[in-house]
Amino acid sequence: VRLSGTKYGCGVGGCGACTVMISTYDPVAKQIQHRPANSCLLPICSLHGAAVTTVEGVGSIKTRIHPIQERLAKCHGSQCGFCTPGMVMSIYALLRNYAEPSMEQIISALDGNLCRCTGYRPIIDSYASFARDSICCQLRGTGQCCLDQEECVCSSSTGGQIHSGLCNPEFPPMDPTQEFIFPPELMRMAQEQQRTLIFHGKRTTWISPTSLKELLELKAKYPKAPLVVGNTSVGLKKNRHDAYHPIILHPVRIPEMYVVSSTNDGLVIGAACCLAQLRDILMETVPKLPEEKTKIYQALLQHLRTLAGEQIRSMASLGGHIVSRGSTWDLNPILSVGKSVLNLASEDGKRQVLLNDQFLAGCEHADIKPKEVLVSVLIPYSVKDDFISAFRQAESQKNALSIVNSGMRVLFSPGTNTIVDLSILYGGVGSTTLSARKSCEKLIGRQWNDQMLNEACRLVLEEIFLPPSALGGKVEYRRTLLVSFLFRFYLEVLHGLHQMYPFRYAELSQEKMSALGILQSGVPQGVQIYQDVDPGQSPQDPVGRPIMHQSGIKHATGEAVYIDDIRPVDGELSLAVVTSIKAHAKIMSIDASEALQVPGVVDVVTARDVPGKNGKDEQAYAEDKVICVGQIICAVVAESVTQAKCGAEKVKIVYEDLDPILTIEDAIKHKSYITEERKIEKGDIEKGFKSADEIIEGSELHMGGQEHFYLETNSVLVIPRAEDKEMDVYVTTQHATDVQELVASALNLQSNKIMCHVKRVGGAFGGKITKPSLFAVIAAVAANKTGRPVRFALERNMDMLITGGRHPFFGKYKVGFTNDGRIIAADFQCYINGGCTKDESELVIEYIVLKVDNAYSIPNLRVRGHACKTNLPSNTAFRGFGFPQAGLFMETCIVAVATQTGLPHEKVREINMYKGVNLTSFKEEFDAENLWKCWEECLDKSDYYSRKAMVEEFNMQNYWKKKGIAIIPMKFSVGFNATYFHQVMSL
Amino acid sequence: VRLSGTKYGCGVGGCGACTVMISTYDPVAKQIQHRPANSCLLPICSLHGAAVTTVEGVGSIKTRIHPIQERLAKCHGSQCGFCTPGMVMSIYALLRNYAEPSMEQIISALDGNLCRCTGYRPIIDSYASFARDSICCQLRGTGQCCLDQEECVCSSSTGGQIHSGLCNPEFPPMDPTQEFIFPPELMRMAQEQQRTLIFHGKRTTWISPTSLKELLELKAKYPKAPLVVGNTSVGLKKNRHDAYHPIILHPVRIPEMYVVSSTNDGLVIGAACCLAQLRDILMETVPKLPEEKTKIYQALLQHLRTLAGEQIRSMASLGGHIVSRGSTWDLNPILSVGKSVLNLASEDGKRQVLLNDQFLAGCEHADIKPKEVLVSVLIPYSVKDDFISAFRQAESQKNALSIVNSGMRVLFSPGTNTIVDLSILYGGVGSTTLSARKSCEKLIGRQWNDQMLNEACRLVLEEIFLPPSALGGKVEYRRTLLVSFLFRFYLEVLHGLHQMYPFRYAELSQEKMSALGILQSGVPQGVQIYQDVDPGQSPQDPVGRPIMHQSGIKHATGEAVYIDDIRPVDGELSLAVVTSIKAHAKIMSIDASEALQVPGVVDVVTARDVPGKNGKDEQAYAEDKVICVGQIICAVVAESVTQAKCGAEKVKIVYEDLDPILTIEDAIKHKSYITEERKIEKGDIEKGFKSADEIIEGSELHMGGQEHFYLETNSVLVIPRAEDKEMDVYVTTQHATDVQELVASALNLQSNKIMCHVKRVGGAFGGKITKPSLFAVIAAVAANKTGRPVRFALERNMDMLITGGRHPFFGKYKVGFTNDGRIIAADFQCYINGGCTKDESELVIEYIVLKVDNAYSIPNLRVRGHACKTNLPSNTAFRGFGFPQAGLFMETCIVAVATQTGLPHEKVREINMYKGVNLTSFKEEFDAENLWKCWEECLDKSDYYSRKAMVEEFNMQNYWKKKGIAIIPMKFSVGFNATYFHQVMSL
Repeated sequence: VRLSGTKYGCGVGGCGACTVMISTYDPVAKQIQHRPANSCLLPICSLHGAAVTTVEGVGSIKTRIHPIQERLAKCHGSQCGFCTPGMVMSIYALLRNYAEPSMEQIISALDGNLCRCTGYRPIIDSYASFARDSICCQLRGTGQCCLDQEECVCSSSTGGQIHSGLCNPEFPPMDPTQEFIFPPELMRMAQEQQRTLIFHGKRTTWISPTSLKELLELKAKYPKAPLVVGNTSVGLKKNRHDAYHPIILHPVRIPEMYVVSSTNDGLVIGAACCLAQLRDILMETVPKLPEEKTKIYQALLQHLRTLAGEQIRSMASLGGHIVSRGSTWDLNPILSVGKSVLNLASEDGKRQVLLNDQFLAGCEHADIKPKEVLVSVLIPYSVKDDFISAFRQAESQKNALSIVNSGMRVLFSPGTNTIVDLSILYGGVGSTTLSARKSCEKLIGRQWNDQMLNEACRLVLEEIFLPPSALGGKVEYRRTLLVSFLFRFYLEVLHGLHQMYPFRYAELSQEKMSALGILQSGVPQGVQIYQDVDPGQSPQDPVGRPIMHQSGIKHATGEAVYIDDIRPVDGELSLAVVTSIKAHAKIMSIDASEALQVPGVVDVVTARDVPGKNGKDEQAYAEDKVICVGQIICAVVAESVTQAKCGAEKVKIVYEDLDPILTIEDAIKHKSYITEERKIEKGDIEKGFKSADEIIEGSELHMGGQEHFYLETNSVLVIPRAEDKEMDVYVTTQHATDVQELVASALNLQSNKIMCHVKRVGGAFGGKITKPSLFAVIAAVAANKTGRPVRFALERNMDMLITGGRHPFFGKYKVGFTNDGRIIAADFQCYINGGCTKDESELVIEYIVLKVDNAYSIPNLRVRGHACKTNLPSNTAFRGFGFPQAGLFMETCIVAVATQTGLPHEKVREINMYKGVNLTSFKEEFDAENLWKCWEECLDKSDYYSRKAMVEEFNMQNYWKKKGIAIIPMKFSVGFNATYFHQVMSL
Repeated sequence: VRLSGTKYGCGVGGCGACTVMISTYDPVAKQIQHRPANSCLLPICSLHGAAVTTVEGVGSIKTRIHPIQERLAKCHGSQCGFCTPGMVMSIYALLRNYAEPSMEQIISALDGNLCRCTGYRPIIDSYASFARDSICCQLRGTGQCCLDQEECVCSSSTGGQIHSGLCNPEFPPMDPTQEFIFPPELMRMAQEQQRTLIFHGKRTTWISPTSLKELLELKAKYPKAPLVVGNTSVGLKKNRHDAYHPIILHPVRIPEMYVVSSTNDGLVIGAACCLAQLRDILMETVPKLPEEKTKIYQALLQHLRTLAGEQIRSMASLGGHIVSRGSTWDLNPILSVGKSVLNLASEDGKRQVLLNDQFLAGCEHADIKPKEVLVSVLIPYSVKDDFISAFRQAESQKNALSIVNSGMRVLFSPGTNTIVDLSILYGGVGSTTLSARKSCEKLIGRQWNDQMLNEACRLVLEEIFLPPSALGGKVEYRRTLLVSFLFRFYLEVLHGLHQMYPFRYAELSQEKMSALGILQSGVPQGVQIYQDVDPGQSPQDPVGRPIMHQSGIKHATGEAVYIDDIRPVDGELSLAVVTSIKAHAKIMSIDASEALQVPGVVDVVTARDVPGKNGKDEQAYAEDKVICVGQIICAVVAESVTQAKCGAEKVKIVYEDLDPILTIEDAIKHKSYITEERKIEKGDIEKGFKSADEIIEGSELHMGGQEHFYLETNSVLVIPRAEDKEMDVYVTTQHATDVQELVASALNLQSNKIMCHVKRVGGAFGGKITKPSLFAVIAAVAANKTGRPVRFALERNMDMLITGGRHPFFGKYKVGFTNDGRIIAADFQCYINGGCTKDESELVIEYIVLKVDNAYSIPNLRVRGHACKTNLPSNTAFRGFGFPQAGLFMETCIVAVATQTGLPHEKVREINMYKGVNLTSFKEEFDAENLWKCWEECLDKSDYYSRKAMVEEFNMQNYWKKKGIAIIPMKFSVGFNATYFHQVMSL
C-alpha cells in the first residue's frame, strides 16, 4: 500500500512513532471503538475486521490537512519530524473518542510517544488548543491572553505579531463530522461473521475461534499455543528464535473473555479486556461504590495511569498481563495482594485459582494447566479494615518499566491495629514477582507500630535477597526501594488508621506526613517567547521570525520521506550485520556456509570484499580482530530483511579472547589513550593555591554516557547506477561529504562517482556525523559485490548496540578559594571514555579542556584532559560536544566551594563570573556584558529570590519531600574550531 | 534478467539493433549452429533448447571486453551507440562460424543492421581487421600501410601518430578459445528430448511436435493453426488483432522438414530450412553441377544475397517464404518459373503440387489444403535450352523490400530460338505475385527477336494492369520496371543464345551489352584522414585528437543505459497513446469506457487532465479538434505495455471531418502559411535580368521530406517524487530545458520542481529538439494524475506516425546569365511544407532564404520564402536545417545554366563562386579564401579531372549504364541565429 507515513522507531512499542488507530465494531454493544496502537507489534492477522487509520487517513497535502496536523506544524511541534505522525495519531485517536478532552487526557494520550527534539512543550501547546479546559496563554506567566489584545502580547513586552500556538485565532476549528466513518462493510461483517478464521503463514498458523467452546478445543489440541490479544508480550520476542510459535490462538471474538460484571465479591473482568478498558471500567465503577470497597481498584488505577503508553494500554490485555507474569508488570502485585481469582476453563470444565505469589512464581500446582484458558478475573472488593497500597519507581514516571514495584495489603482485626493478614509483593527484584510471604506470616498478630516496622524491614531484606551480582544491577538502590516502599506503606496505613479511628490512633507528625502523597507532574508550564522583528524588516526576510519548519506540514501528514520511506527499488536487497559479541578478541574464523543456505540469502560480505580502503579511522568491516562488542564483522544480504537477519544469525564466528579495557580507570591504569594529553594553563597555579584561604582536594566527578536515540535509526539505501560504477547513496547523515569520501575510498573510486543524497534527517544530535559513513560503506561494499541496490535500515537495538553516544566522564579537581567564595586557583584533570576508536574523541576532550571554565574567571587554572581508549563502541559527537560534562564538572566544583564557605550557590557563581573585558584561559578576548545582562534578566524574570524563599520554606516543612531551584550561568564560547561548521542546520 | 544491452529499435526485424545469437545443437549431424537473429521477432517458446547469446555474453567492462567491442569503439564505430550492440552481435555470430571471414561476408553480415550516425565506414573499418583478406589501409589511397613505417602515414601527409582503425597493431588478437561454449546440458537435452513441447500462454498455445506424424495429427486437429519457424512473417503481425492465432505449431524438430537431398530432378530442400541455409546449400552445390543445370539456383542465389539482412535470412524458412506468399517476396517468382514442386503431407497421405502462378495467387484448387503441411520443396535442375533470370528493384540494394521483382524463364526448342515455354512472374505489382501467363502463351512458337519483344511488352503491360490508384503508388515507375525487366531479360537471353551457339546467333551490340551485368557495390573505399595535432600540444588537451567516444566501450558492450534501459521503477505504469486517424476534424466525443474495462488499465488521460498549459506552440493532448493524422488525443496508462496498447485500441473517438490541406500547392492556393513571407533582396533584380544574355524561367524543384529514424525512438520515464509534486523526467532529448519548461507549465509548477535527466541520446539529428517535450508532457500529466511513475517508449511505427521530419520543399526560379555562365540575376521562390504547427518551420524557411546562395555570389538576387501550414504532422529540425533543400535548389539552377550554356558544371560553379572579400546577400562579410582552398584541394586530391575523363569514357562506351562525378562547393554560413546553440554535442 506504500503508506510510509507511519514510522518504525523502535520495533518494541516503546516510541510511538508507529502509532495507528485501530477501529473495531462491537456487534453486541453496537459500539465502535477507536484505539491507538503501536503498529510495530500488530500482527496483520489480528486486524481482520478492523479499520486501520494511518496518518495518511487523517489528512495530507494532497487531500486536506487536518487541524491536528496543521496546529502541530504551525506551533513548531515538529523538528526532525520523525515522531510527528505518531503524535498526530495519538491525539487523533483521542479526539475520535473525546471531542473535548481534558488536558490530562491529552498529556496522557502522548504518554507512549517519544520526541527527542522539541522537549514536548510545543507539541503539548499545539494540542492544548483542543482541550476542553484549554488553558490559554495567560496562564503561562504573561498575565494576559494574546487574544485579549489586538496585537499579541505572548511575544516579548514590546508587542509582536506572533500568536502563541495555544491561542492562534487563525486555526480552522476541528470538525468531527469530516472524519472518515467506520466502513459499513466491516460493520456488516462483524454482525455476520461467525466463521473461525485461520491464517496459514509460512511458519505460523493463526487461529481466531468464535466461541469459548471452540477455543477450549483448540487449546486442548494445541496446548503449547499461546493466546495472543494485543501481542505486546509475545510480540516483543518476535525476533527471538526461542519464541517461535507454530500455532497462535487469537481469542478476541469470544464474548466470555470480554465480560464485565459486578458480583457480590467484586468485579469480574474478561481476560481479553485491554488495560485501557480496565482503567475506564474502574474509573467508572469507583465513584459508584463505597470507598472502602474500592481500595484495590484505586491502587490499580494509580498504576494504570503510568503503565506504558496509551497505545500499549489499548493493546495489552488484562489476561496477557497476568499470564505472562513479567517481573516488572505493575498490576500483578496489586491483584495478588488483593486476592484476585482467575476463572479458568478447559474442555474438562471450569475452575478457579488464586492469583497469588505461587501463581506468579509459576509453581506448577498453582498454575494454569496447558489446556486451560484464563477466561476472566475476579478482582474482589476491599473491606473496611483493608489497607492496600501500590508503589513503583521507574527511570521516568511514564512509559518506563519499573525498577522495583510493589503491592502491599494489610488487614486488621476490625477496629484494631492488629495484623490479621499481610501481603507484600515486589516486582523487578527477581525473575518473577516475589512475595515476602514468610515475613508477612511472622508479622501476623503484631501491632502496626515502629517495632513491627523495624522487624518487617529486617525480615523483608532477609527474605527478598538480592545478590550483589543480581541481573539488572543497581542492587543497593533496589534494596533501598524495598524498605522505602515498606516504610511508606507503614506511614500510609498509620495515616489511614487515624482517619478511620481518629480518636484511637494519633495523626502522623508533620515530618512523617511529608512522606505521603504522590508526586505528579501537571501540565507543563513553559512558555516560548518569540523575539520581535523590526517592523521595517522586509516580509520576505525570514531572519528572526518564528517560521514553521519548511517540512512542518509534511512531517505532520507523514508525507515527508525519510530513507526507509523511499519506495523499493528494482532488485533491491536487504542487509543485516553480524556484530562482535566480544569486547576484545581475535577473529579466528568466519563460517558463512550455513548462512548462505538460508533461502533468499544472496551473499555474505566481509572485509575481504572491500576493494579499496576499509574505513578511515575505524574499520568498516572488522578484519583480524574485534575491539568492542557490537563491531560489525560481516553483512548478510538477502531478498528480504527477515531472510537477511536469519542469515546473520547463522554466521559462525570463532574468537580468541583478548583482555579488554572497559572503564576509564582501567584505561588510566594501562595508559590507554586515544591522543596526547590536552592541557591549558593560566596564571601561576602553585602561587594561586598558596594564596587561597581554603583548598578542596581529591574530589571526583563520575558521569555516565548517553544514548543518542535519534528517532530515525541509521539507514542507508545504496543504488548502484548501471554505468561507471557510480552509486547513489541515500543516507540519513549530518556529514554527507564524509559518506561520499568513505564510500568512494572503500570502492576505490573517485568521489564524484558517489552521489550522496540527504533530503532530511530524522534526528541526529551529533550521532549522525561519523557513524552513517560506516553504515554507508557496509551497504555500498555489499552493493558493489552483488551489483544490486542494498537497503540497510538498522533496528533500534542494533543501532544502540553498534553506535556510541555521549562520552562518560571522570574528573578530579583541586580548588583553592577565599573565604568569601572567590576561586583563586583550580587544577582540573578530565578523562573521557572514548571507546575503541578515535572518532570525535580528540575534539571532545579538547572542548572539555577549553570550556571547563564555563562562565568563571579563575585567575590560576590548569586543565588537563585525556581521551581514554577502551573496548567500548566508540563514543562520538553529541549535542554540546563535551560542554555538558565540563559544565557539570565546573558547577560541581562551585557547589563544593559554596558548601564549604556556606555561601549561597548563586553568590559564589556571581563572585567568580567574568566581569568586564577579560582574556579566557584560551586567550580569547571575552566581554562579559551580555553574560551579566542575561544573568540579571533571568534572576528578574524568574523571580529567583522569592521563589528560592518559597522553596526553602517548603523544604523546612517537608522532611521527606524536597524542592530545588538553581540558576547557572553559561558561556559556550568556542563552538567548533572551524567556524564554518556552525552553518549547518541543527537537527 | 535485466540484460538491456540488446536494443529495441523497430520491432519488425528491420534495424538489427536487437540482434542476438541463437545457438542450437543438431543431434543428428552432431553440429552446433550459431545464427544471428532479430530478437524482436523471436517468440520465447521457440528458444527451448537454444542458447541465446546477447551482447552482455560477448563481453562487458565488468568482465572483459571482446576484441569486436574494443575495435568497434576505438575505430569510432559508435556515435549515438544505439545500433552498436546489434553490430557487435552480427559480427560475433559471423566470427563464431567463420574465424577468418571474407570482406564480403563481413559486409553481408551487417546487411540487416542500420546505423544512422556513422555512415557505416568506421564500422566496416573496425571489422575489416578480422577479415581473412584484410585489406590494409594502403588500399585506401594512401599507397602505404600505416604499419610499414614507424610513424603512421594514414593520417595526413605530414605524418601523424594515429593508426587507422584497420591496421592498429595495439588491438589484442581475437582468441576463439575464449568464447562461451555451447551449454553441455542443452546438448544432452537435444540428444534426449523426444517429448512434445506445449506452452500454454494466456491467449495462445504453442506446440512443438517431435515427428511428422504428430505434426500432421495436430494440423488435422487444428487446421487453422499456422506453422511458425522463424516468425518473420506471422511475427510482423503480432500487434494486429486479425493475426491472432490460438494455436501455433512449431515444426523445428521434424527431420523430414530439414531434408536436403539431390534427386534426378533437382534438389529437395526441407521447408523448415532457413534462407541462409538454402543459400549455403546452393553455394556448395552450384560449383559441383554442370552449369546448365544450375540456372535456377544461380537466380535464387542472386536474390538471396540481397534479401533482407543476415538475421532475417537466418530466421525465415524456405517454407514460410513460399507459404506466406508475400507479393514482394523475392524467391517465389523464381521458384515458380523454375517449376518447383511442393511436397505436401497430411494424415491422408502425401501429394505434390506445383509452385505455380495459381498457387501464388491462392487459387483454391492449386493451394495447400488446411490439413496439409509443406514438408519440402523440389527445386528442379534447369536444362541446356533454359534461360532463367531474376530481377528486383528496391529503394536500397539490401535490406529493403522490392518495389517490383521478377522471375523469367524461357525454354527454346533445342538449338533454336523458338520459344517452347515462357514464364514471366512479377512481384510487388498486385496483392499477390502475378503471372503474365496469357502473354506468355501467346508468345509460344515465336522467335526470340525484336518483334517478339515489342509484342511481349505490349502484352505484358496489358495483362499486368496497374490502375492509377494502385496501392503503393509509383504506378508509372512500376510500369516502367515491368518492361525494363523484360527488355533486360530479352538481352540476357540473346547474349546467352550467342554464347551457346556463337555461330548461329550474333553477339549483342556494344550498346546493348551495356545493359547486362549486375551493379554491385563492393567494399567501401572511403578513408578517414585524421588531422595532426601540434607535437607540443599537451597530452591532456583533447582538441584535434581522434578520441574514442567517451561511452564507446559502453556502447559496444551494451552497458550504456538509454531511457528504456532504466530498470523498472516501483509502481511504474506503461503508456500508450490514441492518435488521430483524421487529418483535419472536430473531435465530437471520446469514449474511454471500454478501454477502462481492459484488465490492467489504470486510467485514460485527456486534455482535461492537464492542470496547467497543454503544450506551447502545439497542443500536447488534442482539445476540440485534430489537425493532422497521428496527433495525440489521449493516453492510456496500464500496468503493462500490452494492456496499455490494448486499452488504446478500445478508445472510441467520433470525428466530424473538416477539409484538410495536405500539399504545398494546396497551401499556396489557400494562402495557408505559418508565418509571414521571408524575403531577402540584393542588387537590382529587374536590371539584372535585362543585362542577362539568357533567362531560364518557370523552372521548378520538388523535393520530398525525410524520416528522422534516430535508432532510439522517443522515450520518456517520468517518476513523481514523493514530495512537493516534484518529478524526475528521464528523456531522450536534445533540448532538456524545453522539456523542463513544458512539463512544469503543463503541471502548473515552477520549473525547479522538474528534474530533467539526459544521460545520452540514441540518435536525434534535430528530431529530438521539440518533440520529446510533448511526449514528456503526455507522460507527466499521466503520472501527475495517477501519482505513479509512467514509462512511455514509442514503438517505431508510432514514432514515425506522430513526429514529423525534414520539410518537403517546392521551389520556383528564374535565372538570368551570360553566355559564359555568369549568373547575373536570380529570383527564387521557396516553399516548405511545415505541417500543422509552427515547430521550427519559421527558422527553417529563414535558413533556406539565407542560405540558398550557397557558395555563389549572385549580384542581383531575390529570395522569397513561405512556410506552408498543412494538415500533416508538424515537420521539425533536421540535420542541415533547410540547407539540404536550399543547396539542392541552387545546384539545380546551376545545372540548368550549365546545360543551357553547354559549359561543364564545375566551370559554371567556379565562375559564380564568391571571390575575395564580399558581402553575402544577408550582408555578412565573407572572405572566400578558404572556400577556394577547399575547392582546389578537393579537385586536386580527388583527381577530379582525370576521374571525370574516365567517367565520360565509360559513359561513352555504355549506353545503358552510367557513372557520374560531381564537385560542389558549400558554404554553411549562418548556422543558428543564436551562436551559443552551436555549442551542443552533435548527435
